[in-house]
Amino acid sequence: MDLLELETPCLVLGNGRLEKNISHLHKRMEHFGVNLRPHGKTAKNIDVIRMALAGQPGGITVSTLKEAEYYFSHGIEDIVYAVGIAPVKLDRVANLIKKGADVTIILDTIEQVGFASAKAQEYDLNIPVLIELDCDGHRSGVTLGDSLLMDIGRLLNSEDGVTLRGVLTHAGGSYQCKSIDGIRAIAEAERDTAAKSAEMLRQGGLPCPIVSVGSTPTAVFAEDLSGITEVRAGTFVFHDLVMAGLGVCDVKDIAVSVLTSVIGHQKQKGWVITDAGWTALSRDRGTASQEVDQGYGVVCNVKGEPLTDLIVSSVNQEHGIIIDRGGKELDWESFGIGSAVRILPNHSCATAAMHDRYYVTDSSTEIIDVWHRFNGW
Amino acid sequence: MDLLELETPCLVLGNGRLEKNISHLHKRMEHFGVNLRPHGKTAKNIDVIRMALAGQPGGITVSTLKEAEYYFSHGIEDIVYAVGIAPVKLDRVANLIKKGADVTIILDTIEQVGFASAKAQEYDLNIPVLIELDCDGHRSGVTLGDSLLMDIGRLLNSEDGVTLRGVLTHAGGSYQCKSIDGIRAIAEAERDTAAKSAEMLRQGGLPCPIVSVGSTPTAVFAEDLSGITEVRAGTFVFHDLVMAGLGVCDVKDIAVSVLTSVIGHQKQKGWVITDAGWTALSRDRGTASQEVDQGYGVVCNVKGEPLTDLIVSSVNQEHGIIIDRGGKELDWESFGIGSAVRILPNHSCATAAMHDRYYVTDSSTEIIDVWHRFNGW
Repeated sequence: MDLLELETPCLVLGNGRLEKNISHLHKRMEHFGVNLRPHGKTAKNIDVIRMALAGQPGGITVSTLKEAEYYFSHGIEDIVYAVGIAPVKLDRVANLIKKGADVTIILDTIEQVGFASAKAQEYDLNIPVLIELDCDGHRSGVTLGDSLLMDIGRLLNSEDGVTLRGVLTHAGGSYQCKSIDGIRAIAEAERDTAAKSAEMLRQGGLPCPIVSVGSTPTAVFAEDLSGITEVRAGTFVFHDLVMAGLGVCDVKDIAVSVLTSVIGHQKQKGWVITDAGWTALSRDRGTASQEVDQGYGVVCNVKGEPLTDLIVSSVNQEHGIIIDRGGKELDWESFGIGSAVRILPNHSCATAAMHDRYYVTDSSTEIIDVWHRFNGW
Repeated sequence: MDLLELETPCLVLGNGRLEKNISHLHKRMEHFGVNLRPHGKTAKNIDVIRMALAGQPGGITVSTLKEAEYYFSHGIEDIVYAVGIAPVKLDRVANLIKKGADVTIILDTIEQVGFASAKAQEYDLNIPVLIELDCDGHRSGVTLGDSLLMDIGRLLNSEDGVTLRGVLTHAGGSYQCKSIDGIRAIAEAERDTAAKSAEMLRQGGLPCPIVSVGSTPTAVFAEDLSGITEVRAGTFVFHDLVMAGLGVCDVKDIAVSVLTSVIGHQKQKGWVITDAGWTALSRDRGTASQEVDQGYGVVCNVKGEPLTDLIVSSVNQEHGIIIDRGGKELDWESFGIGSAVRILPNHSCATAAMHDRYYVTDSSTEIIDVWHRFNGW
């Protein structure tokens, strides 16, 4: 089957680009001698994660317990659930552990230790825990030098039902960097926060076997990973326009795109109307704060080759509007009613989240496979 | 079961608010003697649409063929698919008509007439068509005075397999209004464009039984609907912060919200971290261009009562950050780890699209029903 036979909108995954992106990060990690723990939240698909796991120890990261259950059902046991634990989710964690999954939770408060310890004792099992660290003021985590680190560490070490397994941090601030030097600096802050916190725990007589860092930009540009035992990254498998804007990848590396049909023209305005609205592209505007604002995505021909200066300037629920950002007259012949184009996403996690499957292609427009994905919790 | 027993994040629907919102628009339509053709794209759920259809002739609007198939499978036959037809979707339209659905498509080009006519003849059936009009420069449609209207009308009237059923327009520009007078003006432009275009078709000897207009803001504020046979609206069932910002509803009328758990604090910054990120709230920032920017949503207590000045200031995939927009110190006691709050959405269509079910409540936090919804095409 060919892409041109598909009903639009739908999500296309270029297998060659996917392989190249994964291979690139594998080589980097090999160079540093550090394990990759790929994040399952981007693809939410076992085929992609199996490729990302090739040559790695086999552990993954997830952002929801639904991902944990799904990947565990496909044979992956070592799972870090990298969102600060909500008490209401501990029953599902316990049930996964009971079934044989090695699920590690993360937390950054004394209260969460109490909830986890109580639930583990209720189920008569042990829940491994990483202490979440804040390396860049981005979101959650204990900051470097806060005595809370040792307080949580000691409590985890003394309470029944919980085991201190190490520390984890995520340099989410790297997405807002304005230069590659900026990313390198934030990668070093990420490493430094994690390595120093691990050292503090150890000096306090506490165990810290795992020292986990990661984000796609810092994984791609880190210059030193000493003291780190594993790197987590998710977006790198697909990349996206935000990553391209950061210099983390080239636009031509982006592996996912949305196939859409032309359904109308407003020629006097230079608009091509398509059937890919925000239900297909998402409302993500991650490039809005970058040097080049890519609107709701860069337009490609049906083979996935970017068409210079054509972007999706606005979206409604089931409509997208394509313009030439330079105001050049469009070649209307190539955008006939019913013709197809592909849109590269600002943020691949967000765009993929609007779809339930990937139509996998190789270099041509032939569909070589269909891989399912899921959403929800 | 009570809301507090639910795993978070999840979508809550207040039945009392839903009933009130629907009743309000029903009364307006009754006053004008105009039919309501509710839009099924907001709820994507038969229970909500049945309530919206009470006392109406029974026709609905949809934005995808999946909605059309779903509602038809629940006994609704009269369906307007209100997105300019893509040729690749005509087989599904034909199959629905073959099964007995009365599906009307919309279009605004000569080419689409050719595609529809050819497909109808291939299936040996008739496809009813509305000509899409542009009343506000917002998106698609033939503008008033463009000779294309009569060209399409005559072609629909002469080609086999297609029937001209009338005209349709959507004042999507009303979402960007800055005042109620602005909405009233755009409602009048919507009415005027549709009524005059219908008159032109009739004066040219063409049939135009249906004259369809609609958007939630214009449906709520139109002062005259003469010449109009039906009003379409979708968001009105739930309303949202964009509608509240426009003055179309009160914040307390918003019927959907996302239940979320507190999973962390950054007290020195005044941040409460929750488990409702963009996968739960969507990336919609519809209030960003309004007088009051509500971030990613307004925070309510678990009963759904808005908490003054608390908004979600930023989101990641599975995290939301709540702040007090006035910079006031938070009452940390009421945001303990594991406690629950609810978030009112910028755009109810977009937020609901991130979920697969509604937990329906009445005035209390007791769950009285669970209604499913779907996404995709």
